[in-house]
Amino acid sequence: MRVGILGAGQLCKMLIQAGLPLGFELSVFAPKGDHCIPYHKDVTFSTWDDNQALKDFAKACDVVTIESENIPKEVASIVQEVCTFAPNVQALIKAQDRLLEKQLFDKLQIPNVPYAQVDSKQQLHAFVQEQDYPVILKRRRLGYDGKGQWRIKSKACVDALDPQILTDCIVEKAIQFDREASILGVRTHQDLKFYDLCQNTHHQGVLHHTQNMPGDPLFPQACELLSRLMIELDYVGCCALELFEVDGQFYANEMAPRVHNSGHWTIEGAQTSQFENHVRAIAGLPIGDTSSRCKTHMVNILGSFPDASSLLKQNLHLHDYGKTYKPGRKRGHVTSTQPLQAERLNTLIKSCAFEQHDSLSMSA
Amino acid sequence: MRVGILGAGQLCKMLIQAGLPLGFELSVFAPKGDHCIPYHKDVTFSTWDDNQALKDFAKACDVVTIESENIPKEVASIVQEVCTFAPNVQALIKAQDRLLEKQLFDKLQIPNVPYAQVDSKQQLHAFVQEQDYPVILKRRRLGYDGKGQWRIKSKACVDALDPQILTDCIVEKAIQFDREASILGVRTHQDLKFYDLCQNTHHQGVLHHTQNMPGDPLFPQACELLSRLMIELDYVGCCALELFEVDGQFYANEMAPRVHNSGHWTIEGAQTSQFENHVRAIAGLPIGDTSSRCKTHMVNILGSFPDASSLLKQNLHLHDYGKTYKPGRKRGHVTSTQPLQAERLNTLIKSCAFEQHDSLSMSA
Repeated sequence: MRVGILGAGQLCKMLIQAGLPLGFELSVFAPKGDHCIPYHKDVTFSTWDDNQALKDFAKACDVVTIESENIPKEVASIVQEVCTFAPNVQALIKAQDRLLEKQLFDKLQIPNVPYAQVDSKQQLHAFVQEQDYPVILKRRRLGYDGKGQWRIKSKACVDALDPQILTDCIVEKAIQFDREASILGVRTHQDLKFYDLCQNTHHQGVLHHTQNMPGDPLFPQACELLSRLMIELDYVGCCALELFEVDGQFYANEMAPRVHNSGHWTIEGAQTSQFENHVRAIAGLPIGDTSSRCKTHMVNILGSFPDASSLLKQNLHLHDYGKTYKPGRKRGHVTSTQPLQAERLNTLIKSCAFEQHDSLSMSA
Repeated sequence: MRVGILGAGQLCKMLIQAGLPLGFELSVFAPKGDHCIPYHKDVTFSTWDDNQALKDFAKACDVVTIESENIPKEVASIVQEVCTFAPNVQALIKAQDRLLEKQLFDKLQIPNVPYAQVDSKQQLHAFVQEQDYPVILKRRRLGYDGKGQWRIKSKACVDALDPQILTDCIVEKAIQFDREASILGVRTHQDLKFYDLCQNTHHQGVLHHTQNMPGDPLFPQACELLSRLMIELDYVGCCALELFEVDGQFYANEMAPRVHNSGHWTIEGAQTSQFENHVRAIAGLPIGDTSSRCKTHMVNILGSFPDASSLLKQNLHLHDYGKTYKPGRKRGHVTSTQPLQAERLNTLIKSCAFEQHDSLSMSA
């Protein structure tokens, strides 16, 4: 069985790590440039618009999956003509356009925060007149980790906006939430399982810290929301739904039709990792137990890399993505499968994930 | 940090899997032929006597380790001239000659079963006259998994032996033991840790099944014996000592100066796997927690490969080494981190590890 992966970042690296023990052959198609798998032999470096290279790649695979929703949907269509594409083209189309995604949530009665389509300053003004500041303006396409997003606190901010930004956007009310969470599911045509609810902390739009929440009282609500989505999309593989909690009610933030940063704790913390289960699901194999092995914390390494030795001495599991330095860039993560008191956790987050970076830069 | 591995079998594959998340570069030197890492880019295929290729390989590495004790000791010496070799040349020399190994055990007062050097039929007769049948004749060098070993039950067996076999051998009394066990340790110059005692079942000289034995009353005894060995050899990395228990007393069978089949359960069953700890130790990083996460069973897949789907449905973790079929060949293993009742365990062993093969073939 040959599994193809589109993209060669850290999610690809961890998918390969999960697929190799299962005996799969793993082929990667990726644009030239920075990547996380210099040691991997079977990589096709090309461009997303090289249809022939894509077809040749897909022909050699039994199934092809993605590590990012930001690949052109045409790529998925081409792959699908030749072999199985997972999760599926519809999921990709919805996930790569925030407006279509929110409309899908509406259709499935998955609670959304108030939002509106924005293609002009006028539409933006109309929204804030109704909902008041602060709001978040987001590009409909290609944003992630807080990129392509602007937190807008006042009319002065709106006036300062480059009008060129104001097409193909949505605007959302910046709600006061009690916590950020995510729910991760894995589905085959026979089975649907969920990992424990994840409680997340972001800083400047980038995930810093995730912990699984065994026995969380809102777990059933989160599962129910994600199951609507996965069943509607006839989804195969792992899917994440990011959520805001307000007074015991979840509101959808966004979906990710792939393995997700808030699921990295599953490598050590769950019976079967999200990466292994994604590969098993798309390969048509039975998925494994998603239950947690223990309370687990995951902290991202952003920007400067702490000394590996000092991390390992703290009984942490280290995942170094092998990426060069850029301010605030996700370069790895650490996992703790032992209890972390608040003080130690804060120290760890500070040492790994508190470098300043430039996303959400227009928040003034 | 670049870590070199000599050999490209399943132990190499699992060392690579453990080293990549830590951000290491991993280079492999291996003889041409069958191997388990067709997807890995950085492999030098050559022969053990290609000194120049070896030197070039070692020069690019910070540390080089082994996945088998059966590489010529000259290889280790050449590597050592250029970079760090781990565990070390002395450990290799002792482990690849059963006579030197047993003499080392004697020196360290690690109990041996009665044995003698054998280079002639006369010496073999002398031994059985003193110790009586059955005995096991073993080549001093290059045997593993029951290969190069002959169980001898009577004088007729001795008479039937090809005289050519009878040089460079040792003979051991085939003792009646209560169980087979192994103890696995990992050492740096600062630290020495042990995994739980492993209780092992062999069939025809090949390991079928291992389970960790949390709280085993003989764990301290096993640790004590292995620590003598590791300290004497100034050992760095993982080392296994195979043991026979007779009435609460362990007797050494053999040592393995590397990660060991009876430690494969540690991937899912221990806080830090033997593979990760070996790589960390030889790279000069702090070693991780060796404590067990749960009761764990490991069953080897020998010869015919069971259906992956049926294994995964049983909540097992599958490790497929990607090796072609040969009768009785180790082609993978499965791990269970959930309790296995005796009946289910036996069914699993039968489905994975009961193919007949030809080691210990002269046992008639």
